[in-house]
Amino acid sequence: MGVLDRHAALDAMEGFAASLFERLQRDSFDGVGITRASYAPGETAAHELIADTARREGLHVGEDAAKNLIIALPGQEAEKPFIACGSHLDSVPQGGNFDGAAGVVAGLTVIVDLKRGGLVPPRTVKVFAFRAEESAWFGKSWLGSNAMFGRLTEADLSLPRATNGQTLRDAMRATGADLDVISTGKRLLDPAQLAAFVEIHIEQGPVMVARGLPVAVVTGIYGNIRHMRIICRGRSEHGGVPRGMRRDAAFAVAHLVVRLDAAWQDFERVGDNVTVTCGMIGTNPDDHAVSRIPGEAWFSIEIRAERNDTLERFYRRFEAECRAVETERDVRFELDGRIVNMAAPMDRRWVKHLSGICARLNLAPELLPSGAGHDAAVFVHAGVPTAMLFIRNEHGSHNPREAMRMDDFMAATKVLHEAVCNPVLGGA
Amino acid sequence: MGVLDRHAALDAMEGFAASLFERLQRDSFDGVGITRASYAPGETAAHELIADTARREGLHVGEDAAKNLIIALPGQEAEKPFIACGSHLDSVPQGGNFDGAAGVVAGLTVIVDLKRGGLVPPRTVKVFAFRAEESAWFGKSWLGSNAMFGRLTEADLSLPRATNGQTLRDAMRATGADLDVISTGKRLLDPAQLAAFVEIHIEQGPVMVARGLPVAVVTGIYGNIRHMRIICRGRSEHGGVPRGMRRDAAFAVAHLVVRLDAAWQDFERVGDNVTVTCGMIGTNPDDHAVSRIPGEAWFSIEIRAERNDTLERFYRRFEAECRAVETERDVRFELDGRIVNMAAPMDRRWVKHLSGICARLNLAPELLPSGAGHDAAVFVHAGVPTAMLFIRNEHGSHNPREAMRMDDFMAATKVLHEAVCNPVLGGA
Repeated sequence: MGVLDRHAALDAMEGFAASLFERLQRDSFDGVGITRASYAPGETAAHELIADTARREGLHVGEDAAKNLIIALPGQEAEKPFIACGSHLDSVPQGGNFDGAAGVVAGLTVIVDLKRGGLVPPRTVKVFAFRAEESAWFGKSWLGSNAMFGRLTEADLSLPRATNGQTLRDAMRATGADLDVISTGKRLLDPAQLAAFVEIHIEQGPVMVARGLPVAVVTGIYGNIRHMRIICRGRSEHGGVPRGMRRDAAFAVAHLVVRLDAAWQDFERVGDNVTVTCGMIGTNPDDHAVSRIPGEAWFSIEIRAERNDTLERFYRRFEAECRAVETERDVRFELDGRIVNMAAPMDRRWVKHLSGICARLNLAPELLPSGAGHDAAVFVHAGVPTAMLFIRNEHGSHNPREAMRMDDFMAATKVLHEAVCNPVLGGA
Repeated sequence: MGVLDRHAALDAMEGFAASLFERLQRDSFDGVGITRASYAPGETAAHELIADTARREGLHVGEDAAKNLIIALPGQEAEKPFIACGSHLDSVPQGGNFDGAAGVVAGLTVIVDLKRGGLVPPRTVKVFAFRAEESAWFGKSWLGSNAMFGRLTEADLSLPRATNGQTLRDAMRATGADLDVISTGKRLLDPAQLAAFVEIHIEQGPVMVARGLPVAVVTGIYGNIRHMRIICRGRSEHGGVPRGMRRDAAFAVAHLVVRLDAAWQDFERVGDNVTVTCGMIGTNPDDHAVSRIPGEAWFSIEIRAERNDTLERFYRRFEAECRAVETERDVRFELDGRIVNMAAPMDRRWVKHLSGICARLNLAPELLPSGAGHDAAVFVHAGVPTAMLFIRNEHGSHNPREAMRMDDFMAATKVLHEAVCNPVLGGA
């Protein structure tokens, strides 16, 4: 069967995928949006739906000690490193239906198509459905994929669930995970067994909608540096104090933010991809007042960059801007602990390979960095050749208005189909 | 007795004033600072201390229906309009000892000195100790002086005390005020009975310390325009969204604040006195996060200016800056109700008169606007010729570190002494 025939067959799979999305939607609608809580019944129901569907198709279905779902289609060289794909099935509270689920359904659609058509790919293909990717529940991302590589610490396992304080340890145990294994920090999967990991995910930003791209090949996942709470200390006094004598903490924070915005534009002009977000900002509700100069204001900062050196350079610029505002406005910025998540560049040969497949399928082979983090980053850091493909999605993610078109989904699924049938072997 | 003799006698009164400040401090120390709650036992104890002291000196002591304290020394022309001085005796929670009390003690010191010396001033001199000047307790300022002119509304009387919800009405009644009179809105004092009102008050800002001025003549009390809560609406989305596609509410508020700071400098350059304070600022604690662009941020604003036309011009500039940021960043600013307190210019002849007295006493006759509001503004708006004198004070007001030097206090008291003995009569 030639490429065109295979694609005609795959088109017929659209109904299979659409019905899975409908079932997921129906099972996890919370009245407002989609809620599939990590290591909780909402997520588990989604895992069971996918597992049952795979079993009915005669595929091999298993789980690891962290209750990540693993569906396998044996390849021609079953003893050699396999090709993995997939994503996560949990969601944020009142989120959307496609963030995570799209990657699992795409992977399953591909191997069901191969299985039904009697096609055996060169290498075994495994579809992973990870647990607990979203940080909304336990304050930390990618818990299931980290568990796969033995990277959950005791501190991680003691993280409380935001909604009810249940620890991750208890939540995992209640879901059936084997804590005796997880607690040892033992790897559940040897990275050397993987030839590659390819994750499909909806785009969480608005770039692809704006640029009219149904799919895009991800060049890398942004790293980030965060401070959860930087306190600016000035002097609280009466609002009648003249401008030149003030040590106004709110004006100082505003001034710093505008200087960071200017720095961001400097970086953009020379093509250095960063983003800067101050997601939280505030004066102290216990003693702020309309007519008093605030002596204290706080804010969070997250700097993202595609490359670790850009990230560090922007961070140094941030430090310099803090010092400049401190001098000009006689305030002090007190920084809490710096949290660093390293950038995760995608495997260069796979980026080229996926771009080539897109071109052959008449999809503009567009390259895009991922501002958001993904399970794929865990695979990069484990040393696995890793690739990602984005699907266009409207209205952003993490909200009920997520909107992925099925023809865009099927386009991405075709690219994945090609990729697992003709994988890059040997890494970059 | 000549001027110099009178001043020698007045110097001997420093101990009298100092012991009153000590008693006030002792009676109202709360463990951290000074607390004399409005229309509550703390304030009442201070009123009783001042009343008892005046009675022991043989002065006439009375109260009006709002329980403002009125101490009188009859003048040579007792039937003609009198000269009033004084200030308030309440404090903010954990405040300082001198904000308000300095003006009452100064007035009392002057008339006790006259009484002891057997001197009869040309006009009757009355010392007022107002109730409830501080907005910290009932959310509104100058309640006692407003009551004096029949200006407490039913809405004012229903204001709840911030600490325990007790209404102003109940608090006044518990203090012994005559609510049957207050509720009618009847004036307790006819402004035509006053020849002038002269208020001594510590400076609440740092200007006089910085410029080395022991006393200063106030040219006018700033008016202000306030918004308690302006909401900036943008779009909440993932922190990976590129700069040009964001509608970041926090960056927009920061941008607006920095533009207002620039506008402020424009006004300063041409000598227009304004101050701009954003005392409260924040993202929504219910849904903000370190890695999400805030779709909503709020802030308060207070614009103060010495002249009402400057105030209005700055407000129009503020509106224009809002529109500019809305356009540039695709956000919307939602303004709540605009609260206006008109500026209160001091009587020009009194400003000149007090400056002349300062010069004769070898005090640099410095003029200063008052950024903060005072009971004196109520008298200005009632049509009374009004003047104010500031005393140097370190560390600002409304905090336990308020620090007034007794020699500065005595310098101001001498100016007041001269002023009531040789008043401007007939207004400006």
